[in-house]
Amino acid sequence: MTAAILTIGTEVTRGELIDTNSAWLSDKLSDLGWEVVEKRSVDDDMNRIVSALQELSSRHQVLIVTGGLGPTSDDLTSAAAAQALGSKLIRDPAVLQGIHEFFARHGRVPHPMNDKQADFPEGARVLPNPRGTAPGFALRMGRSHCFFTPGVPSEMRGIYEESIEPSLPPAPAPVYVRRLTCFAPESEIAGAIAALEARFPITLAYRATAGQVEVKVTGRLTLGQEARSREPVDQAWAEAQSLLSRHVVVEGRKTAAQILGEMLAKRNLKLALAESCTGGLVSKLITDIPGSSQYYLGSVTSYDNAIKQKILGVPGPLLAQFGAVSRPVAEAMAEGVRKAFEADVALSITGIAGPGGGTEEKPVGLVHWAVALPNDLLAFEGKFRGERSFIQQRAASAALLSAIDAVSQL
Amino acid sequence: MTAAILTIGTEVTRGELIDTNSAWLSDKLSDLGWEVVEKRSVDDDMNRIVSALQELSSRHQVLIVTGGLGPTSDDLTSAAAAQALGSKLIRDPAVLQGIHEFFARHGRVPHPMNDKQADFPEGARVLPNPRGTAPGFALRMGRSHCFFTPGVPSEMRGIYEESIEPSLPPAPAPVYVRRLTCFAPESEIAGAIAALEARFPITLAYRATAGQVEVKVTGRLTLGQEARSREPVDQAWAEAQSLLSRHVVVEGRKTAAQILGEMLAKRNLKLALAESCTGGLVSKLITDIPGSSQYYLGSVTSYDNAIKQKILGVPGPLLAQFGAVSRPVAEAMAEGVRKAFEADVALSITGIAGPGGGTEEKPVGLVHWAVALPNDLLAFEGKFRGERSFIQQRAASAALLSAIDAVSQL
Repeated sequence: MTAAILTIGTEVTRGELIDTNSAWLSDKLSDLGWEVVEKRSVDDDMNRIVSALQELSSRHQVLIVTGGLGPTSDDLTSAAAAQALGSKLIRDPAVLQGIHEFFARHGRVPHPMNDKQADFPEGARVLPNPRGTAPGFALRMGRSHCFFTPGVPSEMRGIYEESIEPSLPPAPAPVYVRRLTCFAPESEIAGAIAALEARFPITLAYRATAGQVEVKVTGRLTLGQEARSREPVDQAWAEAQSLLSRHVVVEGRKTAAQILGEMLAKRNLKLALAESCTGGLVSKLITDIPGSSQYYLGSVTSYDNAIKQKILGVPGPLLAQFGAVSRPVAEAMAEGVRKAFEADVALSITGIAGPGGGTEEKPVGLVHWAVALPNDLLAFEGKFRGERSFIQQRAASAALLSAIDAVSQL
Repeated sequence: MTAAILTIGTEVTRGELIDTNSAWLSDKLSDLGWEVVEKRSVDDDMNRIVSALQELSSRHQVLIVTGGLGPTSDDLTSAAAAQALGSKLIRDPAVLQGIHEFFARHGRVPHPMNDKQADFPEGARVLPNPRGTAPGFALRMGRSHCFFTPGVPSEMRGIYEESIEPSLPPAPAPVYVRRLTCFAPESEIAGAIAALEARFPITLAYRATAGQVEVKVTGRLTLGQEARSREPVDQAWAEAQSLLSRHVVVEGRKTAAQILGEMLAKRNLKLALAESCTGGLVSKLITDIPGSSQYYLGSVTSYDNAIKQKILGVPGPLLAQFGAVSRPVAEAMAEGVRKAFEADVALSITGIAGPGGGTEEKPVGLVHWAVALPNDLLAFEGKFRGERSFIQQRAASAALLSAIDAVSQL
């Protein structure tokens, strides 16, 4: 009992578009207990789409197909599904009317080609699209429950959440999943909580990304006894949090910037940043979060040393004596931006992201960062290896983590 | 005569990792005249890997396989390739020695499991890995020339460039490709250059992303007459540039931040930024480019209005009268940061990225931006629709484009 995902579109096979839909869908399906074991992409070619549908539907019990439901002549998915089934396309009058109304609402006139989006393989069940004109559809083929959606990510997600997930067959091994995010090395986290697997009927999985680890607690869900079968997962999940309480640990799946933001908002503290080698990345990560204006004042990217002096007030002699990438300068940047912005908490980062600019004494990858607090000033140093963008990301993560640690003590 | 790509790994089928390798490879193959028509990912399951190898190698003339060459028990690709061929694994003594030396060079001791990375299907040709321990390999299977690489993107790219591309069979329709990047609406670009397709034996293709369009000029490459068959492409490409000369047009595939950077460097001008709704994104895009310190001084992210006043010197009455998202404030931000940073060129952006903060008069998606020059001040306004991150990206692209336009006049 396995699941598969098929992505249709020449723009994907040619590499013009990176497919993010299938990763999103896999994640959702695996949280229900479905194992996605195969993914395919084929170009807009009738024969190849038909073959892929027939092969995948003969092997897997769930097949989700995205793409190829648009209005152009390249969009062949509905016709290919009908051909794979040996059936024909039927125009759905209610959907046709819906398409015309959608255009009217947006003050536009539909092209005759748009009518095609109301064509479905005979016997298919239409899945409404809350965010666009092309509905999805569901049908049975081979051994599979097949679901079809447009390739536009927001439309695919809307149809999945509203119509596909509720009508999936029961997973072969239904599961109940809870997550927590912890900021500590993976080995340390695993060491602290691994024994839970012996005490509860659950499994633990870890996903580590730059300084943070997502812990997934999964338990078998017994149908008909949902509430009782959730208990061991809830208990193990709660115990994991207390076992990890000496680290920063939060419920669910969160980024470091989200966690720092929640901490700042709860404590009514205002944050400012002074970035150098990360060039605005930390500020971007913080402002990716809606509502960050509640606790975020802003930042200075002091890429040039003159800006460190003029705007952040870093003393020139300090720069001359220790160099821009040094502990004293990181500290002065944090203090400087805290004062200039009248912030409660300030974070600074200065380093060498490469590929140029490294020396024997200060190699590419050396980063200093500092956290300035109302009554404290903390300094940190890291050496990161890899390409420029990787060093920038690792430095940003490490600095956010230091800020989380510091703010958690306030 | 088609090509396919197979990605092996449970982390990909489960959605824990987004596969970017296959898009990169498709792009490279299509530049040679190979059409990638199918991509697959399977999990770390011996039977599914063997089936996928057999099916794909029976259908396509080129098959590139990534992933599953690591040292752990999950890494099954070499064994699966041997099984698919009905042959066995042979340990390569030279590769084994190379692995041990690689570890020694990095002061580490190899685990016995690492030795597995020296095992290859009988008859395979080893492809050296310049960036890691696991070499790739090449072999013939079914109708295919098959090439295997590790899944780590930098290692895959290294092996492709050094060993795979030079040993690919001649493409069914070898092509010669040249690109240019133009900053204008796609329809306008197509209108200006479409006639070249009638005058030269070439095809034009367009790839539009947020305000910029990549134009690809492709011509048939006649083997044995390479130089002569390249001429029409070179001519059409040069003519396209002159036909588009009233827009900003540059050779090759470039981002707006790269182009702005090259223009600034050439003119010896220094840039500063004042960002609000984009929250550091423009600064990040600029500092993603190695060597940007040559022309980039830095930025202020003035997320809070108080910072617009304190650091950028935007007059309080201006903020009170027009609001933070307005033409006068965008202008004052650009002028303010230009003065504070002693820059030649300054770019400011202020807008409402949403989802909150919109009003009837100033809806989510409204963005004002301004470019301050030594003797000029230009203001712009846009309304972008979509999710928060999309609005931020579109605003950043539009603002960079305005800066390119303005700097190109200097």
